[in-house]
Amino acid sequence: MKIYGDSISGNCLKVKWVCDSLGRPYDWIETSVVDAQTRTPQFLALNPAGQVPIVVLEDGRPLAQSNAIILHLAEGSALIPADAYERAKMLEWMFWEQYSHEPYIAVARFQLAYLGKTQADLDPKVMPRGVAALQRMEDGLSDGRAFLVGGAVSLADVALVAYTRVAHEGQFDLADYPRVQAWIGRVEQALKIGD
Amino acid sequence: MKIYGDSISGNCLKVKWVCDSLGRPYDWIETSVVDAQTRTPQFLALNPAGQVPIVVLEDGRPLAQSNAIILHLAEGSALIPADAYERAKMLEWMFWEQYSHEPYIAVARFQLAYLGKTQADLDPKVMPRGVAALQRMEDGLSDGRAFLVGGAVSLADVALVAYTRVAHEGQFDLADYPRVQAWIGRVEQALKIGD
Repeated sequence: MKIYGDSISGNCLKVKWVCDSLGRPYDWIETSVVDAQTRTPQFLALNPAGQVPIVVLEDGRPLAQSNAIILHLAEGSALIPADAYERAKMLEWMFWEQYSHEPYIAVARFQLAYLGKTQADLDPKVMPRGVAALQRMEDGLSDGRAFLVGGAVSLADVALVAYTRVAHEGQFDLADYPRVQAWIGRVEQALKIGD
Repeated sequence: MKIYGDSISGNCLKVKWVCDSLGRPYDWIETSVVDAQTRTPQFLALNPAGQVPIVVLEDGRPLAQSNAIILHLAEGSALIPADAYERAKMLEWMFWEQYSHEPYIAVARFQLAYLGKTQADLDPKVMPRGVAALQRMEDGLSDGRAFLVGGAVSLADVALVAYTRVAHEGQFDLADYPRVQAWIGRVEQALKIGD
């Protein structure tokens, strides 16, 4: 399997972490967004949406969208809860991540840390909605909950840790969210991120 | 089961259509976004994100996020392809819908048709990205493809028809996308929408 990904992209790292966690071999093909390597005719033939990550499965078929990719790769593994309601809650967090977290936390980080902009340059919704997303996670981790869903690490944690762990690069202060900070440590340990 | 939904919201109608298609009974509790009925303490206790739709399952447990809800309700039905790759492609379209389609097509419609704004009032990204999303669908429906994934209607079609069929209310001209127009008719017929 080939993974076309940009190493600075949390969406791309989700796929790497799931493969590493499952012991699934892959070739990583570094594909820079900043250098527009996702806009070449060759890349657009693989993914007309012009986004990374994309995987090319062993049989040559492509698959895009980070959360769809990790749901496919992790089918039948312990990263997806066996209980139907827990599985649904995992999906709830994953869709929420793409709609209400990534467009603010990841976008602030990319613009501020990688494009050299200042907060004044950002769409005024970005910072307050990022703060709201982090607070939503802090609230979701109440009651001594170790992971977002059930009692073990799941794809909900994979999807949400990707940009939350680097939210400080988007000038969010994680010290305001102590349960989120502790959860990041647990998820990194469970997925062996940074080893 | 109870569905808290706003009848003008495509995200809410997805849940209704799937229940109707599967013959699953429910009580629909009309919950107006414009009238801020999603911001009452009672509603926020059900869904801290303050969004519709939300369902309360027969056992009293709540579930949010339209695409997570329909994936849960349709488990084991013909609305989810049996083939693992087709299932993954369905999820790819569903995550793409929430990230690259709904924030432009649905937002343009809501602001222009329901809040009485003009195109000049919109974030300048909204209309061009909506056009790009419709073109992406037109391209995805090439090669005589009847539905987005495989040979039958799936949750990918449910998720994407919700706002595409009312895109004209967001001042998008569906006549520019003849394959999308024909697909809307097929999906409405398969789901018995409008009967």
